[in-house]
Parts: sequence; structure tokens; C-alpha cells
Amino acid sequence: MPRYRITIEYDGTPFIGWQSQSAGTSVQDALERAIAGFTRETVRVKGAGRTDSGVHARGQVAHFDLDREWEPFRIREAMNFHLKPAPVVVVDCVLAASDFDARFSATARHYLYRLLPRRAPPALDRHRVWWWPSPLDSEAMAAAAIHLVGRHDFTTFRAAQCQAKSAEKTLDRLDVARVGDEIHVTASARSFLHNQVRSMVGSLKLVGEGKWHPDAVAEALAARDRARCGPVAPACGLYLMRVDY
Amino acid sequence: MPRYRITIEYDGTPFIGWQSQSAGTSVQDALERAIAGFTRETVRVKGAGRTDSGVHARGQVAHFDLDREWEPFRIREAMNFHLKPAPVVVVDCVLAASDFDARFSATARHYLYRLLPRRAPPALDRHRVWWWPSPLDSEAMAAAAIHLVGRHDFTTFRAAQCQAKSAEKTLDRLDVARVGDEIHVTASARSFLHNQVRSMVGSLKLVGEGKWHPDAVAEALAARDRARCGPVAPACGLYLMRVDY
Repeated sequence: MPRYRITIEYDGTPFIGWQSQSAGTSVQDALERAIAGFTRETVRVKGAGRTDSGVHARGQVAHFDLDREWEPFRIREAMNFHLKPAPVVVVDCVLAASDFDARFSATARHYLYRLLPRRAPPALDRHRVWWWPSPLDSEAMAAAAIHLVGRHDFTTFRAAQCQAKSAEKTLDRLDVARVGDEIHVTASARSFLHNQVRSMVGSLKLVGEGKWHPDAVAEALAARDRARCGPVAPACGLYLMRVDY
Repeated sequence: MPRYRITIEYDGTPFIGWQSQSAGTSVQDALERAIAGFTRETVRVKGAGRTDSGVHARGQVAHFDLDREWEPFRIREAMNFHLKPAPVVVVDCVLAASDFDARFSATARHYLYRLLPRRAPPALDRHRVWWWPSPLDSEAMAAAAIHLVGRHDFTTFRAAQCQAKSAEKTLDRLDVARVGDEIHVTASARSFLHNQVRSMVGSLKLVGEGKWHPDAVAEALAARDRARCGPVAPACGLYLMRVDY
């Protein structure tokens, strides 16, 4: 049974998230239907990151098995044909080793979070950035972010419904940079807890507003208490950019 | 009569272009209606660049006069309120000198053109880039672009309906760069002919495909013949980024 690895880009706005649920269309559903559309096979597509509703991807990775072997470029073409008009595309498809697992073989995941701190709402980037109508101090946010890098218990920054056994994770990178009108937060780790990036960004934004001192982020982390986290940042600013293997 | 200068961002997709016409909604119409919405005044808004239907702006500039004086920040807030839900926003509003003219006082206009040369169509950047399903040689395009920089008769690269008296223009900058999956063409000049950027990009893209040698762009320019221009690039990849005064 050949295994395929696909790299996917999607606009998360119309989806209930990556994962199939009882109601609504997930990215997973859209991909599985597109595969069935040309193979007549019912497959399960397994993704590297289970992005929430509204979260985007430029480089999500997934794998699936087919009974029949197909040329990888034909799979990409046929999936893109059957995915239309949903805003999901297969950027790349390759034959993978039979033990490749999009989720468990990943060695690093890279996320980008885009904030637009300006008075005017976005005209070109609706549903693509977190619009905040006041200035944010990106230098203070960058100073706060340093406290989160490294191996920590991230209980403060995980969703209540997070299913990971341990809240201990190693955050390899959390950079804050000004890019034109926007502030970009880039986060890299082998794996993240549920809502971890959005929870961290939500707290960094309080620092940017001046409501929290940068050190308050270190205190919130040390408290290991979900109640100490800032409001979780909205999904629309988050992008799964790349997964390494 | 106070004069105001506004900086505007818009998604050009739903508009018939900058300029008012007998049918359809222009960006100009949307702005004039928004001004009337809170001032009850009928004004004419004059823009720096008359962008075509589908062309976007991150930094279009326009001016208008009002009978009554308003705080500039109130104008910005009221316009953004009345512009909703159209994808146009006023990023900035300032009081201008009475002889300021958004079009004629401009000393430079800066455009960006985004191409996405890859097999998979865009999922996140629909209507935001020119999607081309094959590779393009950006180095050959950059070599070709150099031929167009400087003072030239741009007859080859102007629309048939262009109303400028002379086709002689000075192109200060035409750079081609890879940015991730995309190719970005940046063009700067005091002023451009109608469709000039899209005409130049259309020809550069033929070079990128290998259909034209980079020198063919110089020959097309020297011919001063509209028939020698490559197919005009689509509107959706073009952005008016900034206007200098």
C-alpha cells in the first residue's frame, strides 16, 4: 500500500478547522473527498498540525495510503481539480516511506502570527491578521517573548481541552518583528500544546499594550495556571508555515 | 475651504476601478458617499493614481475640499464607519495646503506586482497575485527589466486608450526579486502611462517563460509599437503601494 505525503495551503476562514467533526466541513473532509473523487477510495488523511477553525496554513503536511499506486504529480493535479472551489490546494505530493507519519515524524513546526496594530481596519487582509486599533510596543513584546523560549511547563498557555499528556515543551524560537504596519510573531518547536501559540500571542499583546510588564509573562509561565494567561489571540492571524522532518 | 489629504487602502476586486463611471461602483464613488454620509456635502475626491478594476492599493492618496472644517482624525473615523462593508479604508487623514493636489503634486509613485509561478493555484492569495502554473526565470526577468529603466518613449507599453500627451516617461526603478514562492516586480516613477506597469510585467513574464530573450524587451521598447508588447498582466497582481510628495 503506497503512502503519500502532501504539502497543503489553505485559507482557514470557511472551515471548522483541520479535524473532521460531526457538523461542518473540515480541511481533512475536503481533502478526503477530493481523494475519493478520483480514486473511489475512502481514506483517512492525517495531518501534522490540527489547526483550529479560522487558522490558515501555508505549509501543512499530511499523509495517506492508497490501495492503488498513482504518480504523485497526478495525485496533486487530481486533488486540486476536485478541491475546487474550496480554498485548499495541494502544493506538493511525494511518495513517502511506509513508516512516515505526518504527525509523529515531524521534528519541527513553524508558525507565524500576524498582528495589525493601527486605527484603520484591514481592507486587503481581512481574516488574515489580528486587527488591533491601537499601537503596540513590539520591543516590549520581543523582550517578553524571550522568557518563553526554552524547555518549560506551558500549562498557563494551553487550552483547557488540550489532550497532551504533558505540558512540558521546548520552544525553540519566539521572535517578534515589525514588518511594515504589522507585527509578526514567529514560533518554532518540535510540537505545541493546543492553543499554545495563540495563548502566548494573547499575553504578548497585553505587554504590547503596556498592560503587562514584560516580566509578567515570566511570572504567568512560572504560575502554571491557565487563569494567568491573557485572552487567547483570534484564529485569523495564525498560519502554520512549515513542518520539518 | 479646508483641503484634506487621505491615504487609502483597498481591495480592488469588487470595484470598477478608481474612477467613477456610468455603471458600477468605483473606489471614488465609495469614498464620496462615505464623505456625504457624515458631512451631507457633495464632494469630488481626486486620487493620485487612477487604478483599473481589480488593482489594489496599500497607499493610494487623494484630496478633497469641505465647506466646514473637521478634525482630520474625525474624518478618518467617520469615513471608515460609512465605508463599511466595502473593502476600502482610510489609513490616514491630514489637513493639506490649499494648493496640494494628490495627482499633480506627486513626485513619485511606487507599484508592486506579485506573480505566483507554481503549479498549485493560490488558496490564501486568490485575487491578490497573478498565478502562473509554470516556473519563471526571475533572473532573466531582472536582466530584461534593466532595459526599461531610465527616460524612454514607452509607446510600446501604454494602453491604446491612454490619454497622456507624451509617451516619454522616466522609470526610476524596475526591480525583480524572488520572495518565497512569489516573484515581486517593484516599479517607481514620477508618473506612469495607462497600463504601463501591467504592460511591462506582461513582457517580463514572457522573458521569465523563456519565450523572449531579455534583449527582446529592449527591442520592443525601441520599436515604439503597441503591437510589440506582451499580453498585459492581469489587474489582480498589481498594488499601488505609496505616493511621494
